[in-house]
Amino acid sequence: MRAVAVHRGEETPRVVEVPKPKPGPGEVLVETHRVGVDGTDHEVIAGNHGGFPAGDDYQILGHEAVGTVVDPNGTGFEVGDVVVPTVRRPPEGTNEYFERGEPDMAPDGRYLERGIVGAHGYMAEYFTSPAEFLVPIPESLASHGFLVEPTSNAEKALDHAFSARSAFDWRPESALVLGNGPLGLLTLALVADSFDRLYCLGRRDRPDPTIDVIEGLGATYVDSRETPVPDVPAVHEPADLVVEATGHAKHAFETVRALAPNGVGALLGVPEDWTFEVDGGRVHRELVMENKALVGSVNSHVPHFEAAIDSVAAFPDWFVDDLVTTVVPAEEPAAAFATDDGTIKTAVEFAPL
Amino acid sequence: MRAVAVHRGEETPRVVEVPKPKPGPGEVLVETHRVGVDGTDHEVIAGNHGGFPAGDDYQILGHEAVGTVVDPNGTGFEVGDVVVPTVRRPPEGTNEYFERGEPDMAPDGRYLERGIVGAHGYMAEYFTSPAEFLVPIPESLASHGFLVEPTSNAEKALDHAFSARSAFDWRPESALVLGNGPLGLLTLALVADSFDRLYCLGRRDRPDPTIDVIEGLGATYVDSRETPVPDVPAVHEPADLVVEATGHAKHAFETVRALAPNGVGALLGVPEDWTFEVDGGRVHRELVMENKALVGSVNSHVPHFEAAIDSVAAFPDWFVDDLVTTVVPAEEPAAAFATDDGTIKTAVEFAPL
Repeated sequence: MRAVAVHRGEETPRVVEVPKPKPGPGEVLVETHRVGVDGTDHEVIAGNHGGFPAGDDYQILGHEAVGTVVDPNGTGFEVGDVVVPTVRRPPEGTNEYFERGEPDMAPDGRYLERGIVGAHGYMAEYFTSPAEFLVPIPESLASHGFLVEPTSNAEKALDHAFSARSAFDWRPESALVLGNGPLGLLTLALVADSFDRLYCLGRRDRPDPTIDVIEGLGATYVDSRETPVPDVPAVHEPADLVVEATGHAKHAFETVRALAPNGVGALLGVPEDWTFEVDGGRVHRELVMENKALVGSVNSHVPHFEAAIDSVAAFPDWFVDDLVTTVVPAEEPAAAFATDDGTIKTAVEFAPL
Repeated sequence: MRAVAVHRGEETPRVVEVPKPKPGPGEVLVETHRVGVDGTDHEVIAGNHGGFPAGDDYQILGHEAVGTVVDPNGTGFEVGDVVVPTVRRPPEGTNEYFERGEPDMAPDGRYLERGIVGAHGYMAEYFTSPAEFLVPIPESLASHGFLVEPTSNAEKALDHAFSARSAFDWRPESALVLGNGPLGLLTLALVADSFDRLYCLGRRDRPDPTIDVIEGLGATYVDSRETPVPDVPAVHEPADLVVEATGHAKHAFETVRALAPNGVGALLGVPEDWTFEVDGGRVHRELVMENKALVGSVNSHVPHFEAAIDSVAAFPDWFVDDLVTTVVPAEEPAAAFATDDGTIKTAVEFAPL
């Protein structure tokens, strides 16, 4: 079958022929419909993230998939069920994090990630998965079901951020999302109904499709070249919730400055090492004197996928249409990995619906 | 009546004569037994913190008090009730934070603090307080009831830290307290029964009374001159919980390094501005990839006082005896503000029990 993989020493993913997988006991065979592309894929391609599957000199990409069950293999699924797979798998057998249903909380070394860390991804005509790692979704969501996985990551970040404010009567009104990439925009859409005032930070000139989406969601676009993060409180207002989805390390610290008292910052980006000067005294003091919190969040577990399914189902049609700018046939995947200012979210399509 | 106050332009607190306060409607008159001294008092004395009461060129010190009701003034209290006052008061009338019972979450400008910010403290023969800001304690705790307020601050920090881990099945085993001052040692005593392994960081040579207390609580003393915070994971182990009680701004960032995956750092110190280099990329990445959190916490509210009363009552006698090294008569308060390595917690005594 056809798959899209990155090879050791190569900088561009390409189509390869690999054997069609056979489901083992408890595993389901899924025919892939679409697989989304995100920043993590670009890190995998650049070799910055994860690691190749043991013994292979290539890695099949893709961790944001949607497909259709073609062989339930004795599990509770039925042929034709539309499913989204979770990403993490135990390195061998299982471990306590997987047994608790919280693989997203497993530390380094206690998980593989399909398409990212030590395991092949979903960017192939078929994939197999243990049934427990497949989440059924309504057929009506099949075309953009690949948005469920990234949305689930935002759901988890919000879950952890809100939990971090559960010790008191938190009444947030304003949210600021740092980053106008797909994850930032999905997060903005998630919080659009529950905050009175929304802001989203980017660094692009108008006209720009992400700015259109931001404003379509009722948010104010903040151009970081004019209004750096620490200036947001003075120019606009301090934010009760800040979600960092840029991977820019200075933003983790500037988030504290942008937060309103009692606010929480959810961090989602994964920067490289980078040493720089910080007014650490001020950051520390503001965290304490203003009861602020920072919560890092990676990956997600099944309940976050289930929440994400509801959220994706509730996204306005225009939002999904405008967000998914590019669907590329699996035969010619290169365009899915190109980035330009006209592109927001791209997916690779295998079997049509 | 006699009070201990710091005067504008002076560096040493001294005894002053001030009028005995008269309780207004809803207020109780309390005869002060003892008032604890902590780092915040030293900041108030040094002029680093808070502000003098409007119109006065002196501030009566003290926010960690215990006393006895002498005039209930028609409230629900009775003569002889032993009480501990909370610290924050509304600047005028009330506001939503006080109405919710969460003055500890009020931002700057929405509160005064007795003995710290814009209001006289409790270091006087008598004080008045609205009944709602007095917490009754058992008579058996009267002698060390001044430990309730600082303990309540640790209770709040732990409340917020645990809440920040409530979105998943957190199973902490190890705790590291940064700082062997009174707040650090009180925090260590609070968590002693609920963590399998305890560490407390200081920078003192043996023999030292704080090291004796640390080891008496079953904790390992970590000398920061030999084992800086970022080295704790390698030398000992990463900690599921880190509580920073040093006010050293670098510790806020080093806390992230010292945390185990899924751990939380509670920050309690209040440093001045201080710019320094941080490997911000690493801090940011570790927060995200290891699901770590940082929670700043200041002050506390009545339920934290109530929790603290139970905790103080459960402290072993030896711990209280060893912690409270110094009780100074109100006539000669200077010794209460002296610091030397033989001193841990000091209090000023007004009326004996």
